[in-house]
Amino acid sequence: MSQSESSEEHADPKDPQEVWRTLSLLRSQRPLVHCVTNYVAMDITANLLLAAGASPVVAHALEEVEEIAAAAGALAVNIGTLDERWTESMLAAARAAVEAGVPWVLDPVGVNATPYRLEVAKRLMGLQPTVIRGNASEIATLGGGDAAGGQGVDSTIESFDALDAAQDLARKTGAVVAVTGAVDYVTNGRELVAVANGHELMSRVTAVGCALTALTAACLAVRGDPLSATVHSLVLMGIAGEVAAERSQGPASFRLQMLDALFLFEEAQVVETARIG
Amino acid sequence: MSQSESSEEHADPKDPQEVWRTLSLLRSQRPLVHCVTNYVAMDITANLLLAAGASPVVAHALEEVEEIAAAAGALAVNIGTLDERWTESMLAAARAAVEAGVPWVLDPVGVNATPYRLEVAKRLMGLQPTVIRGNASEIATLGGGDAAGGQGVDSTIESFDALDAAQDLARKTGAVVAVTGAVDYVTNGRELVAVANGHELMSRVTAVGCALTALTAACLAVRGDPLSATVHSLVLMGIAGEVAAERSQGPASFRLQMLDALFLFEEAQVVETARIG
Amino acid sequence: MSQSESSEEHADPKDPQEVWRTLSLLRSQRPLVHCVTNYVAMDITANLLLAAGASPVVAHALEEVEEIAAAAGALAVNIGTLDERWTESMLAAARAAVEAGVPWVLDPVGVNATPYRLEVAKRLMGLQPTVIRGNASEIATLGGGDAAGGQGVDSTIESFDALDAAQDLARKTGAVVAVTGAVDYVTNGRELVAVANGHELMSRVTAVGCALTALTAACLAVRGDPLSATVHSLVLMGIAGEVAAERSQGPASFRLQMLDALFLFEEAQVVETARIG
Repeated sequence: MSQSESSEEHADPKDPQEVWRTLSLLRSQRPLVHCVTNYVAMDITANLLLAAGASPVVAHALEEVEEIAAAAGALAVNIGTLDERWTESMLAAARAAVEAGVPWVLDPVGVNATPYRLEVAKRLMGLQPTVIRGNASEIATLGGGDAAGGQGVDSTIESFDALDAAQDLARKTGAVVAVTGAVDYVTNGRELVAVANGHELMSRVTAVGCALTALTAACLAVRGDPLSATVHSLVLMGIAGEVAAERSQGPASFRLQMLDALFLFEEAQVVETARIG
Repeated sequence: MSQSESSEEHADPKDPQEVWRTLSLLRSQRPLVHCVTNYVAMDITANLLLAAGASPVVAHALEEVEEIAAAAGALAVNIGTLDERWTESMLAAARAAVEAGVPWVLDPVGVNATPYRLEVAKRLMGLQPTVIRGNASEIATLGGGDAAGGQGVDSTIESFDALDAAQDLARKTGAVVAVTGAVDYVTNGRELVAVANGHELMSRVTAVGCALTALTAACLAVRGDPLSATVHSLVLMGIAGEVAAERSQGPASFRLQMLDALFLFEEAQVVETARIG
Repeated sequence: MSQSESSEEHADPKDPQEVWRTLSLLRSQRPLVHCVTNYVAMDITANLLLAAGASPVVAHALEEVEEIAAAAGALAVNIGTLDERWTESMLAAARAAVEAGVPWVLDPVGVNATPYRLEVAKRLMGLQPTVIRGNASEIATLGGGDAAGGQGVDSTIESFDALDAAQDLARKTGAVVAVTGAVDYVTNGRELVAVANGHELMSRVTAVGCALTALTAACLAVRGDPLSATVHSLVLMGIAGEVAAERSQGPASFRLQMLDALFLFEEAQVVETARIG
């Protein structure tokens, strides 16, 4: 193990300076991030990745999905508008990523809504996701908890209420699990980190969570430690939301400002505003 | 029949105060609106529903579409980028909605453009849509009129020219029919309501009509009377367009302002600006 | 051959006044542009076409794609999120366009990324595209050059480095070939035109190249000379980017301003800012 990998593993996931370092690495390395994501999320996901410095590629054909996943810096898989064919592509991409040592993130959109989504999410969870990110209803459902709630793709419970489920899920799968909400929680089953950045308007723009999942993948592509990379992506997105809220009137101007903010971030802004506990 | 249902049925569809009540109900009840819609429309549709207060879910897999439709407050079906598989999903969702007593809206995008679209639209029309919303060329085509015109998905005739077709269609199907244009007309085959809100820039943003159809579905989810719910959705969208036109230079800033406006509406603005005749 | 067709053929592709004439024709004729394009690009593509004056129709069903292509003023085919079924639709649409004498443009998105994309692009190239537009890595790959580079769907070489490949490709296929980048080059294998309009933020908004391809198709619909039409589309998009850069902070406001600019263009602005050499 090299010196840098070793220091990487021991980086403090709560150090705001490291959030800035991750963004700097995204901007300088421009990692390729393969997204097998839902139709609704594609526009904002690709634009968010570009704004952050990454290079998105959205592709799902079985004929090429394995090659692309294996060549990418990271993979994001999102079941938001799944069907039979896309599920096969998601599974193939995830398998190829694992085989090639490429980190990958699972976003179990609406897994609480139908048995079909739960079945597909479970198959994907069996393929060693590096990170699982969802809202409280989704993580509670995956963690096997009762009363997971949820209406369609929106959560009806607080992130705090899914904390036990998140920790169980992390221990069971070996993945870092992030449950996002007013406060975000990230855990590897042992450590727990909370992120308090963000703004309520984020829930009024479609696919913000999906785009965040892709940003988590981007951060994984440039950092060796999944716990830190996940925390950094949540902080970056959260601060972008806070900046956007100051500069917007409603959800559409908020979305625009959020993407611009991510592109324009300067060091002091990120380091001084990060709220990691 | 309960008191409230009874009074609901007799609500005056031309009362501007009722438009505000519908928006208030959307904001407080946050109804789940299931959209089986076209790829181009997904982003603006989901964002418009969120801005108005509803909770959108975009899903098309045959494995789950019936469950989601049955659990939703309303369903919107849009044939804009149909193909064989999506058509099966649309039919299954519509059948499930009807069986569960969930209101549903049909948007026959481009039905004038190809025989394939007409065939699919006719099959969907056979499944008791609560509302059919289209532009003049589309409604004229469905009404069986000659010279329906239309170029691709745009209308080449005025909404007034499709008025007879709209009324025939309403009588034939039992649906409320809305034909939108510079002036919008809504009819249940007996009553006719005109809405004069709106702005010409609405035709310069893609999928505004599709998003409107989803907003009509959202209004149906919180109001018992389809004629009123449809009128209210047209008024809300039209006023949003008027507000946006004042605050924008071109179609992209117009789109942003339209979504923000819907989110920010206050009572006086809606009640005083509504033009229902 | 009529007088107008004759003068059309001999129009000087470097005359800025002709760029304005093309935009005026778009606005007055509102040509129908059929797009078989990728999911990520659909929103911006349709909105860009509407802003420029054209009438977009996005459709892919085998049941209708030939009819729509044959009835359109032009067709744009983009392989950005291809799969087996969409490939069949692209081939069918291209064949129908050629048979009906409708000009069509091929956008070989990410053709450098996987053998599958290269295979599909070659099949499409065999169907007499009127124009092929790509970034440097894509055109270099199609031209059979070594070291085409590219990371996912982004180019890693300069447009100048694909100049020979572009000229070879034009001679081999009979198509006008455009390779876009900081400077764009357009060639029919004999003549070569360079366009220096544009801004680097264009590479930070997803699918700008894809939307440009559709704009090229729109220009082909109103002008008889493919070389000129292609140059005009690049100039219009490039100036829109320059105007947008002055009015925006980051990529999301840039995207909005670019679309608005295209809608608002006035004659002097286009004629005086065009940089064609």
